[in-house]
Amino acid sequence: MKILVINCGSSSLKYQLMNPQTHEVYASGICERIGIDGLLTYQRPGQPKIKADHAMPNHSSAIDAVIEALTDTDTGVVASLTEITAVGHRVVHGGEKMTQSVIITDAVKKIIEDCNDLAPLHNPANLIGIDACEQLLPHAPQVAVFDTAFHQTMPKHAYLYGLPLKYYHDHKIRRYGFHGTSHRFVSERTAELLGRKPADLKTIVCHLGNGASITAIKHGKSIDTSMGLTPLEGLAMGTRSGDIDPAIIEFICAKEGLTVSEATTMLNKRSGIYGLSGEVSSDFRDMWDAADNGDADARTALEVYCYRVAKYIGSYVAAMNGVDAIAFTAGVGENDIPVREMICTYLGYLGIEIDADENNHKSRESVISTPESRVTVLVVPTNEELAIARETMELVA
Amino acid sequence: MKILVINCGSSSLKYQLMNPQTHEVYASGICERIGIDGLLTYQRPGQPKIKADHAMPNHSSAIDAVIEALTDTDTGVVASLTEITAVGHRVVHGGEKMTQSVIITDAVKKIIEDCNDLAPLHNPANLIGIDACEQLLPHAPQVAVFDTAFHQTMPKHAYLYGLPLKYYHDHKIRRYGFHGTSHRFVSERTAELLGRKPADLKTIVCHLGNGASITAIKHGKSIDTSMGLTPLEGLAMGTRSGDIDPAIIEFICAKEGLTVSEATTMLNKRSGIYGLSGEVSSDFRDMWDAADNGDADARTALEVYCYRVAKYIGSYVAAMNGVDAIAFTAGVGENDIPVREMICTYLGYLGIEIDADENNHKSRESVISTPESRVTVLVVPTNEELAIARETMELVA
Repeated sequence: MKILVINCGSSSLKYQLMNPQTHEVYASGICERIGIDGLLTYQRPGQPKIKADHAMPNHSSAIDAVIEALTDTDTGVVASLTEITAVGHRVVHGGEKMTQSVIITDAVKKIIEDCNDLAPLHNPANLIGIDACEQLLPHAPQVAVFDTAFHQTMPKHAYLYGLPLKYYHDHKIRRYGFHGTSHRFVSERTAELLGRKPADLKTIVCHLGNGASITAIKHGKSIDTSMGLTPLEGLAMGTRSGDIDPAIIEFICAKEGLTVSEATTMLNKRSGIYGLSGEVSSDFRDMWDAADNGDADARTALEVYCYRVAKYIGSYVAAMNGVDAIAFTAGVGENDIPVREMICTYLGYLGIEIDADENNHKSRESVISTPESRVTVLVVPTNEELAIARETMELVA
Repeated sequence: MKILVINCGSSSLKYQLMNPQTHEVYASGICERIGIDGLLTYQRPGQPKIKADHAMPNHSSAIDAVIEALTDTDTGVVASLTEITAVGHRVVHGGEKMTQSVIITDAVKKIIEDCNDLAPLHNPANLIGIDACEQLLPHAPQVAVFDTAFHQTMPKHAYLYGLPLKYYHDHKIRRYGFHGTSHRFVSERTAELLGRKPADLKTIVCHLGNGASITAIKHGKSIDTSMGLTPLEGLAMGTRSGDIDPAIIEFICAKEGLTVSEATTMLNKRSGIYGLSGEVSSDFRDMWDAADNGDADARTALEVYCYRVAKYIGSYVAAMNGVDAIAFTAGVGENDIPVREMICTYLGYLGIEIDADENNHKSRESVISTPESRVTVLVVPTNEELAIARETMELVA
C-alpha cells in the first residue's frame, strides 16, 4: 500500500510516498518557489538528495513534477501511477463542520472553500493541490486531514472568546486551534508508551516548533489549545508574538504609523523570540549560541519562551483538574535539551522530577522523568505525514 | 489624623476622609458629571446620603464642592481645612520610574505627565485633581499612590511581550499591571490572617470586580499579573474581552468595517460577559438571574469567566512553582458565591477543598477552604481607600 501525502503551502508543496502499515517511506521531498520559477527536491531513504530546477508556474505543475520524479525510470519508486492507492492532503482549516478526516467530494471541497476566509494563505493552496491530484491521479481516492479537526471536541467555555456573541454567529470567530494531527498523534503514542488507554489519561502535548502550540487532551479529546482563530495566538514562537494585550495593536499603529494589517504582519513575522532578541534569529540553536556568548537579550528571549510554555502547562493542568503525562514534540520540543529543562524547573509542584541523563538527548522517543515522578514527562517525535497516511488508509479501506 | 483620599476619573471623582489608624471614615462620596453639569454625593457613616447639583465645569470645581461639603456648618466633618493632614491620590500609571508611593513634587508630576500616553483617560485627570488640591489645601502634603507600582517587581521574562524589543525601548511597551494597591493590600492581609510573613508565602490574589485581574505574589512581591500595558488584557471582565487572538482585531476590522481604534473600544466596552451573553448585562447578579431563568448564553458567559480565572490561577501556580494561599476580593470575588465555587471546582489537583458553608456568604473576611485543604482559600475584602490613606500617612509621618 502506497499513500501519497501532500502538504500544500502558498508557494511550496511537501510530499511523501509511504506505507502507513510498515512506516516505510519510498520517497519524499519538497517543491519550492511555485509561481516564481520552481525547484524540486526529491529523496529516497539512504540515497543522496536530488535537486532539480523544474518550471512550476502553478501548484498543478508542481504536482506534475512530483509524479514525474516518482515514476522516473532511473530514480523513481513506482512503475505505474495505479500503485498509488490514495492521496492524503493536509488541509489547514476545516471550520466547525469538519470534525474528522474525510474522503474528498465536491461537498467537502465547498466546505474547505467556505473556510478560505479563516485561512486565506493556506486553504486556497490546499484546494489547488487537491484539484491537481484529482486530475493526475483520477483512480486514487483523495482524503482531507484537517489541522483543526482534532480540536473540535473543545467545550464552548474553551472555544468562545470574551467577544460580542454576534461575532461568533456572524463571522465564526472562535478558537479553532491548529497542529491537530500532531497533537492527536503524539497523545495517542504517549498513551501507548505508558501502556494506558487514551480514555484514562490527562495529557498535555507541547508541540514546540517554529510555530508552537500546546493542547490539553482529557480522556483522548482535545479540551483546550493555545492557538486560536489563527496560529498567531498562544505561545511566543519563532517569529510570532503569541498572546499580547489586545490594546497594544492600536498603540503600535498610532506610534509607528502602521495599518492594522501591517501591525498583524509584524506580529506574525517579526516578533516572538526573533523580535524579542533584537532580531538575532528565529532558530533556537542560534539563540542558545548567542545567549551562551553573553547576549543578554537572546537569553531573556529564551526565558520568556520557556516561562510562557510553563504557564500554559499550568493553566491546562487546571483546565483538566490534573495531569498524568506531558509530552514534548516537534523541532524544539524534540531537540532542545535546555528548553525542556528550563520549562520543567517551574513544574516541581506537580511532583515532576526530570532525569537529567534521560533528558540529555535529541529526537529520541523516551521518558525523561524519573520513575518516582508523579507526572510522566516524555519526548515523543511527531510524524504528521505518517498520521495523515494512516488516516487516509483507514478511510479508503 | 484625617487623610483625604482622592480618586479622579475622567468625568468623576471619588473621595473619602478617613483616619488610617482607627479606620474611621468621617465622610465619603463622589462627584459625577464633571464637565457636564455636576452632581455631588456626600455621606457620613450612619447618615442618609446627600445628593446635590453643584456646577462642576472642571475637576477643580469638583474638589471645591468636596471641600465645601466637608466644611459645611451643618453636615460637615471638619471645622477647619487645616484638620486635613494630607491628601492621598490614586494615580493610575507610574510607568517604570514609580516603584512605590511618593510625596508629590514637580518632578513627580512630570513623571505622571510622561505616562499620559500609557493611560490617556486617567493620568491627565489625576494630575488635574492633584493641582486642584494643591491650590485649595496648600498646607497639606500630597501623596501619589500608583496602581502600577506594586507590579514593578515583576521579572523581565514576565513583563516583556513577544514583540520586537525596540517597541519596549522606544515606546515602553511592556506589561505594567493594575489594581496594585488592592493586590498588595489583600496579599498582606492574607499573610496576617494566616499568621505568616509575606516573605514566606506564595499567594494568588484574584481581584474580581467589573475590571478584574489576578496577581502572583511570591514572597511578598508581585511576579506576574494578568493586566498588561493597559487594563484590557487578561480575564474576561464585565465589558472587557481580556485575552484574544491578536489577529482577531484585523479580522473584525475587515468584517465589520471598523478602525483599529473602534475595534479596541468595542473590546473595552461591549465585550466580556456583557458581550458574550448577548448584552444581557455586565452585572454578575443579572447574569446569574438570567442563567437561572434558562438563558444558555448567560450561563456560558459565566462558565467562560470562571474557566479563565481557573486557568490563570493554574498558570500562576506554575509561575511560582506552587501556591500557599488564594484570595478572592473586589465586588465579584467578595460577593459571588457560585463564581467562587465554580472556579474552585477546577482546583482539586492542588489539594484544595472548599467548605460549602464557609463559602456561603458575601463580603465577609474568612477562610473558605477546609482545615485539610493543602492550599488556604480566602475571601479578603479589599479597601483601596484605606490602603491609600495608610501609605499617605506613612510617607508624611
